[in-house]
Amino acid sequence: MNGAERLIRTLVASGVDTCFANPGTSEIHIVAALDRTPEMRCVLGLFEGVVTAAADGYARLSEKPACTLLHLGPGLANGLANLHNARRAHVPIINIVGQHALSHLHYDAPLTSDIEGVARPFSHWVKTCASVGEVASDAVAAVVAARIAPGEIATLIVPADVAWADVAWTDTGESPAPPLLLPHAPLPSEQAVDRSAMMLRSGLPSAILLDGNALYGEGLAIAGRIATATKATLLAPYPITRLERGAGLPAVARINYVLEQAREQLKGFRQLILVGAQAPVAYFAYPGKDSVFTASDCEIHALAAPGEDYVGALRALESAVAARNVAAETEKAARPNLPQGGISLPGLAAVVGALLPEDAIVVDESMTSGRGMMAATRGAPPHDWLGNTGGSIGIAMPLAVGAAVAAPGRRVLCLTADGSGMYTLQALWTMAREGLNVTTVVFSNRDYAVLKREFSYLGIGDPGPRARDMFEIGRPDLDWVQLGKGMGVPSRRVDSLGAFAKALRNGLQAEGPTLIEVPL
Amino acid sequence: MNGAERLIRTLVASGVDTCFANPGTSEIHIVAALDRTPEMRCVLGLFEGVVTAAADGYARLSEKPACTLLHLGPGLANGLANLHNARRAHVPIINIVGQHALSHLHYDAPLTSDIEGVARPFSHWVKTCASVGEVASDAVAAVVAARIAPGEIATLIVPADVAWADVAWTDTGESPAPPLLLPHAPLPSEQAVDRSAMMLRSGLPSAILLDGNALYGEGLAIAGRIATATKATLLAPYPITRLERGAGLPAVARINYVLEQAREQLKGFRQLILVGAQAPVAYFAYPGKDSVFTASDCEIHALAAPGEDYVGALRALESAVAARNVAAETEKAARPNLPQGGISLPGLAAVVGALLPEDAIVVDESMTSGRGMMAATRGAPPHDWLGNTGGSIGIAMPLAVGAAVAAPGRRVLCLTADGSGMYTLQALWTMAREGLNVTTVVFSNRDYAVLKREFSYLGIGDPGPRARDMFEIGRPDLDWVQLGKGMGVPSRRVDSLGAFAKALRNGLQAEGPTLIEVPL
Repeated sequence: MNGAERLIRTLVASGVDTCFANPGTSEIHIVAALDRTPEMRCVLGLFEGVVTAAADGYARLSEKPACTLLHLGPGLANGLANLHNARRAHVPIINIVGQHALSHLHYDAPLTSDIEGVARPFSHWVKTCASVGEVASDAVAAVVAARIAPGEIATLIVPADVAWADVAWTDTGESPAPPLLLPHAPLPSEQAVDRSAMMLRSGLPSAILLDGNALYGEGLAIAGRIATATKATLLAPYPITRLERGAGLPAVARINYVLEQAREQLKGFRQLILVGAQAPVAYFAYPGKDSVFTASDCEIHALAAPGEDYVGALRALESAVAARNVAAETEKAARPNLPQGGISLPGLAAVVGALLPEDAIVVDESMTSGRGMMAATRGAPPHDWLGNTGGSIGIAMPLAVGAAVAAPGRRVLCLTADGSGMYTLQALWTMAREGLNVTTVVFSNRDYAVLKREFSYLGIGDPGPRARDMFEIGRPDLDWVQLGKGMGVPSRRVDSLGAFAKALRNGLQAEGPTLIEVPL
Repeated sequence: MNGAERLIRTLVASGVDTCFANPGTSEIHIVAALDRTPEMRCVLGLFEGVVTAAADGYARLSEKPACTLLHLGPGLANGLANLHNARRAHVPIINIVGQHALSHLHYDAPLTSDIEGVARPFSHWVKTCASVGEVASDAVAAVVAARIAPGEIATLIVPADVAWADVAWTDTGESPAPPLLLPHAPLPSEQAVDRSAMMLRSGLPSAILLDGNALYGEGLAIAGRIATATKATLLAPYPITRLERGAGLPAVARINYVLEQAREQLKGFRQLILVGAQAPVAYFAYPGKDSVFTASDCEIHALAAPGEDYVGALRALESAVAARNVAAETEKAARPNLPQGGISLPGLAAVVGALLPEDAIVVDESMTSGRGMMAATRGAPPHDWLGNTGGSIGIAMPLAVGAAVAAPGRRVLCLTADGSGMYTLQALWTMAREGLNVTTVVFSNRDYAVLKREFSYLGIGDPGPRARDMFEIGRPDLDWVQLGKGMGVPSRRVDSLGAFAKALRNGLQAEGPTLIEVPL
């Protein structure tokens, strides 16, 4: 056995069974090891930003890390923007990055770069494996690092001569892999719980801002009972990692993106309790405007800080406010009627609301075009909503890849703006190769519309022709039907709400991926 | 005037008149400043890897820096892989990267990241502009840093509140921009020249390995006379930044990529003189094989180290070996006959050799499919050859964009492998928008063929089905005709050498870009 095979077998033994990959020459021995290890599913991406976002989507659904396989510094670099988003999503990912043979490094060959330096800004843990004897312990350390709650980015750099060196599977003959001692998220202090309970009993207008696994499953159920018992409002951050919602589930309001709207939404709250979330602030600063969303007299208190046990914290708070036997108020089942007529944003949202299937996964990077989608689907059958967490656009299609790989029995609806979609359109090919049940809707407004809006927002007049050239992505128009078909995804364009409904229904029942372009 | 406008005006006053851009909200004030500064040409890319490689291609042809405009850490991150290639090409680039307002940074908003950390591995110079009063001097410092010979990557990070703050155009009323004191490349020592001359006069088999501006123009002409006078062989590194070649120009042999072939090519030389080049080594290490290409008894001597004055060094050496009045031996005009019949790699190379127009710019990332292209074009009319310098694939199409912007009167022939092309296919859209005279040939072998070859080369047997799944990029096949048309580029597929010749001839005469897919 060589170091590469020991690496892969140790990852498998540590519960990592999916690898999103775009390897190169320096990773050939690792590819050969994957060839001999059918327990690890391999999914190829044709660009590394697809690979890292797919690992993110996988982790959001499966609550465990996938690994990536990336080619040296530049391959890792191509994956960084979506690692930024994954880092902000607080999900676990293990990056395996090849490195030149240690004996080759001093030649400064063309592909040499400071890989640790490339990794560090978007990784919580970075290590270069120094020898084949350390491969197994380094792999386990990477898994442990990634699984520090709520989830971290671990990057293990593997030199080619470490990968190709011979090594015994076990050094001692005792165990096939070093023990995996996973870290547990600590509970918050009693004081933090008591203070939260006191705030909720005060009768002052209060909200609870949830994040991580407080936004789905048991965490959300408990939060719903607390909210009902104390008349608190449940909130989610605008950057949503994963939110379970729909008929029969507690209502959680997403904080608005636009500064004025968010301030209006939050101005009435005198108390805000954070569960894993940061205090809500604007994405960007504006001249003369405050970045903070909450009112100046709003008390902000963390029930659970990032990395603490959110579900445990909510359970303790539930006891403290005696909410355990409360029947939580939930969303009523309600769908919009299927609208007809010409394309409009409210009409498109209504179609999605009318047709979204039970247990769907919605991946939403629809930007300015999709602002009505959440309202139209609040009473739809239960589903998960996944958003862009770090603000680096170009996540939706590869995130949908990873979600579909993690949850093969579920339907994925991927809503993407055209500008965002262009950053990682190679994800369509992976959907086709893997036969993933993803329906991608591309909102073609042929604009970086958010930038146009921001320009106006700054009060510096209308954009002139040169600024418009940087905001408008038409001239020529992108043809998403050809782009989708070019990558093997059946694709069509719709010009009415009726056609959209038909295409969406077909897509959500099809075997494998489809794409629908909606010109706006 | 605000900081953004002062930045752009200072760049223009310092000779930077082209901006490849993919801006976001934090760069809106800079976009507004560009809107008011028609002296700066703006070219939009739909992905940042397009932007940075375009700046590289621009610099290779114009010998001066363009600037890029990138959105925060993730936008810069998306551009890093091609900045790695640009760094290895030793070209000047000035990255302008937006940053949050300094007053906003401590909120750790979603898009916050360590931008300086992101920039550092692939930049020679990194600075965050600390206040509006320093914008002009920082911009000049960035230009100076980029123009340190032979060319460096300078990254200037501009916080939004520096960009929007008011400032006078001149602090003193004296000068519209700080003085631009460009650095001069130093001449090598007399000893380095004398030693080179002594080596060349020794009669031992000798080669001169050229890089940078020793590979075109006056540098190449002098090198040709020296080589003729001393019977030395002129060599270029496999990673070619820019090589002028063709009928009437000195012959320069490119060092082979494959280790055994390169060792065979260089084994006869007892002396190797470097002009700006590194000693030639393998891209990758292999178990039990030496990474060095030259024979163990070959003496390697640097006439000019990287950053020294290559043309000046060659001029001094020319004097020392009394080559000034020598008539240099040059390539004879000779083109292959236009072949007919089915597609074959030698046939495709012959078609290119037969049709390449005078003064063309060939951008070559044809990988395994294009190995015969240089032999077939050595007697073609004079042209420039641009290659992948850092080994990070996905450079050809955006490099062609930058070359075409820099040299609007010339024809660009872009040769790309399909696997490489997929990393930055968004470049096609920029070709269409700007109406660039680029003919892109996509060699569709539906493989990462180089990886398959490397796998076999390691002697670890044939790849199994799981390894093949990571080397083969068919299933489904990419349809480059649809991908090209989807981005507004007239595209066609050819199934014979005759059809290829016709499409190539049409492409090289067309107004604007075309794409030819060649299934292999």
